[in-house]
Amino acid sequence: MTKSSAGNFFEDFRLGQEIHHATPRTVTAGDQSLYIALTGNRFALHGSASFAAALGHAVAPVDDLLAFHIVFGKTVPDVSLNAIANLGYAECRFLAPVYAGDTLAARSTVIGLRENASRDSGIVYVRTAGTNQRGEPVMSFVRWVMVRKRDRDAPAPTTTVPALADSVAPGDLVVPGGSGLAGYDYVAAGSKARWGDYSVGEKIDHVDGLTIEEAEHMTATRLYQNTARIHFNKVLARSDRFARRVIYGGHVISLARALSFNGLANAFRIAAINSGRHANPCFAGDTVFAWSEVLDMQPLARRRDVGALRLRLVAVKDRPADEFPLRTSEGYDPAVLLDLDYWVLMPR
Amino acid sequence: MTKSSAGNFFEDFRLGQEIHHATPRTVTAGDQSLYIALTGNRFALHGSASFAAALGHAVAPVDDLLAFHIVFGKTVPDVSLNAIANLGYAECRFLAPVYAGDTLAARSTVIGLRENASRDSGIVYVRTAGTNQRGEPVMSFVRWVMVRKRDRDAPAPTTTVPALADSVAPGDLVVPGGSGLAGYDYVAAGSKARWGDYSVGEKIDHVDGLTIEEAEHMTATRLYQNTARIHFNKVLARSDRFARRVIYGGHVISLARALSFNGLANAFRIAAINSGRHANPCFAGDTVFAWSEVLDMQPLARRRDVGALRLRLVAVKDRPADEFPLRTSEGYDPAVLLDLDYWVLMPR
Amino acid sequence: MTKSSAGNFFEDFRLGQEIHHATPRTVTAGDQSLYIALTGNRFALHGSASFAAALGHAVAPVDDLLAFHIVFGKTVPDVSLNAIANLGYAECRFLAPVYAGDTLAARSTVIGLRENASRDSGIVYVRTAGTNQRGEPVMSFVRWVMVRKRDRDAPAPTTTVPALADSVAPGDLVVPGGSGLAGYDYVAAGSKARWGDYSVGEKIDHVDGLTIEEAEHMTATRLYQNTARIHFNKVLARSDRFARRVIYGGHVISLARALSFNGLANAFRIAAINSGRHANPCFAGDTVFAWSEVLDMQPLARRRDVGALRLRLVAVKDRPADEFPLRTSEGYDPAVLLDLDYWVLMPR
Repeated sequence: MTKSSAGNFFEDFRLGQEIHHATPRTVTAGDQSLYIALTGNRFALHGSASFAAALGHAVAPVDDLLAFHIVFGKTVPDVSLNAIANLGYAECRFLAPVYAGDTLAARSTVIGLRENASRDSGIVYVRTAGTNQRGEPVMSFVRWVMVRKRDRDAPAPTTTVPALADSVAPGDLVVPGGSGLAGYDYVAAGSKARWGDYSVGEKIDHVDGLTIEEAEHMTATRLYQNTARIHFNKVLARSDRFARRVIYGGHVISLARALSFNGLANAFRIAAINSGRHANPCFAGDTVFAWSEVLDMQPLARRRDVGALRLRLVAVKDRPADEFPLRTSEGYDPAVLLDLDYWVLMPR
Repeated sequence: MTKSSAGNFFEDFRLGQEIHHATPRTVTAGDQSLYIALTGNRFALHGSASFAAALGHAVAPVDDLLAFHIVFGKTVPDVSLNAIANLGYAECRFLAPVYAGDTLAARSTVIGLRENASRDSGIVYVRTAGTNQRGEPVMSFVRWVMVRKRDRDAPAPTTTVPALADSVAPGDLVVPGGSGLAGYDYVAAGSKARWGDYSVGEKIDHVDGLTIEEAEHMTATRLYQNTARIHFNKVLARSDRFARRVIYGGHVISLARALSFNGLANAFRIAAINSGRHANPCFAGDTVFAWSEVLDMQPLARRRDVGALRLRLVAVKDRPADEFPLRTSEGYDPAVLLDLDYWVLMPR
Repeated sequence: MTKSSAGNFFEDFRLGQEIHHATPRTVTAGDQSLYIALTGNRFALHGSASFAAALGHAVAPVDDLLAFHIVFGKTVPDVSLNAIANLGYAECRFLAPVYAGDTLAARSTVIGLRENASRDSGIVYVRTAGTNQRGEPVMSFVRWVMVRKRDRDAPAPTTTVPALADSVAPGDLVVPGGSGLAGYDYVAAGSKARWGDYSVGEKIDHVDGLTIEEAEHMTATRLYQNTARIHFNKVLARSDRFARRVIYGGHVISLARALSFNGLANAFRIAAINSGRHANPCFAGDTVFAWSEVLDMQPLARRRDVGALRLRLVAVKDRPADEFPLRTSEGYDPAVLLDLDYWVLMPR
């Protein structure tokens, strides 16, 4: 019996395979403190029990992305330990708040497989469900990764590429329970700008920049118990294409989200992630800036107190975001790290 | 409606203006753990529930400076985002212990304004109150910062410089509630030296030194949700006078206080900060040492179990503090980072 | 009265001396979060309240080594502040689980003294007991350190070298209380491999590697309130034999244990440490790999649900562990950092 695992290779996955990921994780106030310390997150709902109580939460829910990273991290040893690249996310919905004390578990289903023409790797699509200790779903998402083959000659599976929605439909966005937004404190939240104050096409420069150190991104990624080697192992990284440790893309998402507070302070809840592209790798020493664009605005059924904004969140490296870099004629601007399309909830 | 903020400039402040700072913050055990991990703090009152219980606290109060930095951090986006320098502190009093679970909010009043002769900046004086979730004041302090003007031609305000006390009067020092110091455990505290064992003029070398890394000071400063750019942004810092990230002065205070445990282990509570000067900037790679001088000793009304020591706490960089460097004929010794004048409480 | 301490020197120790170490420490969920974030630890018992509840724990116990490091850290200011080297550990037994909220205190007895032939240092042997807030022993261990003399001419003590067991007898291993292992969830734990699936002589490559940054090891070591100077002080280190900060050996143990999850996921409890050698110093920038060898397997009296594995855990730097480096004809392989001999508990 082999005791240690080198992770699954492309040929180890089967369509329809269901994977119960190991090491469920109880989220604590310590995790939320570390999340704030590592990202600079300031959204009041996660940092203030008083703010959360006024919205009907017994305690402050932890940051949506902290919960996401923990669930995502659980999937890594089974899904992406031998990934060459995380290619994308889709149909990510946040279904219930996560509180300190909740224990998160993750389960994935293989919903697509496609071998690459090179035959030395293939793309694996999985749908992952994160649940709490009562078995209630707290999030669901699809991601696809390019995974190495152990054996180039292993037979290719039938190609199956799942049909994925371009974006989560507004009717599928879940507004967390609680007492409604009557008690929403705009002073405490840090901005007067409500849902109706934004307009489609509006671009927002989030002004600030954060330089990332090796110790920071590794500490964050270990907090999520994400074991992907390329983030941690300088010796291994030397033989990789970038010859250095690559920062977990989710850390870049978290930094960009934290920076977006300055301009989107009332985006109190991430409701869904429609798609995400890590346009360029991020390394220690990079300074991350961010800008947003309002892609869509939708009211929500039976809720006059809250609306949904569909946003593009772009993380940029080593230059301010005030010129809103995104694409050149060649593709993504070399300074662009992340192009994330997501839905947030905001008071109306 | 502009969504993101570039912070207030000198001409945005009005005398008497009251600012309710955003994002109240619930302090948790996670924050205290991080505070210990980032500073090496060992004062028993904050680290040991048993020690705290013997003094009548239901749970251990968090470190006084952790609470201070959180309240201070709240004020940064409104007060000092465009600061050129933090010039000083005065009349800082610690009014009530802060416990894990308390939610801290901050409110500042502009109490002084003085434009600089150069006309491109001015000095803003604010008095800040930190309160807990019951609205009880936990601290109050004045600070003044040199803030850039957005527009050099903006008219200068009437110069108002507040009269500030050189030091907090002993009668204004607050001894935290609890059951008195009868249960004080000197073995657990780490020293037998009580209030009466010190003498005015005595100097103490705190012996140890701590080298600071970029990841550490940035993690600490983000924990406090302090958004001052110069601490985090290498790209921005390049065009600044030091051409590199400058460490939050409060982190230096915390390190010096933590180092001062070796010599002042029974200084269980900071009661007041009389004044503080960041004599020289501190950068990653610097090694911080510290020494103290007893400036004054005062008994406290109606308390025979506790006395107050007024201390000078000096942080020194890159050399041991055993020669007690402070000033040269030119001003501060170039090795001096911090000159802090504060009151501590100590059992008699 | 001298206020600050430069630590004890060899001539300050007396055989039979009992030292009550200062600053008892309440362990919190924040400490456990930091422990995970700094080591990448994934053992389910410490990370999941649900997993722990199924084994009869009201809350998840904190990591065994986190508790160990905290107790160890308490002893440093008294025992090893002037240590030249930590020479070894023996007879370390873990006696009761430690939970968030427990307050750990440490007490040591000097059980051996031997001056070195050079007369400028000597070896101090101490037996340390860690207790919780109810005075219950949670661990006990012996360690010996080479400590500088303050005065070369101070008289040598009578040489006393304690007789120490090569290993903790299986009958002395304590299985933590709880409801037995009937509720043990192998999927959640991350491996199907039980006690009986291992065999004596079996070697396991733990595959992964972790590069260590200065900020990480210092943050971990401060979390434990370990004040040994060589870990923190670049200025002091310059005049030391390695001319740089040396990583706390306990951090290397923690990293190796965390890496060993991949191959030993069901080793849910460290029951004892028989001996430990830090074969070579570890520095920031090193990448740690690990391998294990099964040295012994023992059933436990009156327990059919759990067995003990005696393991060698070897930490290796800057090269994969798949060739199981340990010794050369000259002694330890220069790549070997740690050679730890310990007992774990594993479900049968």
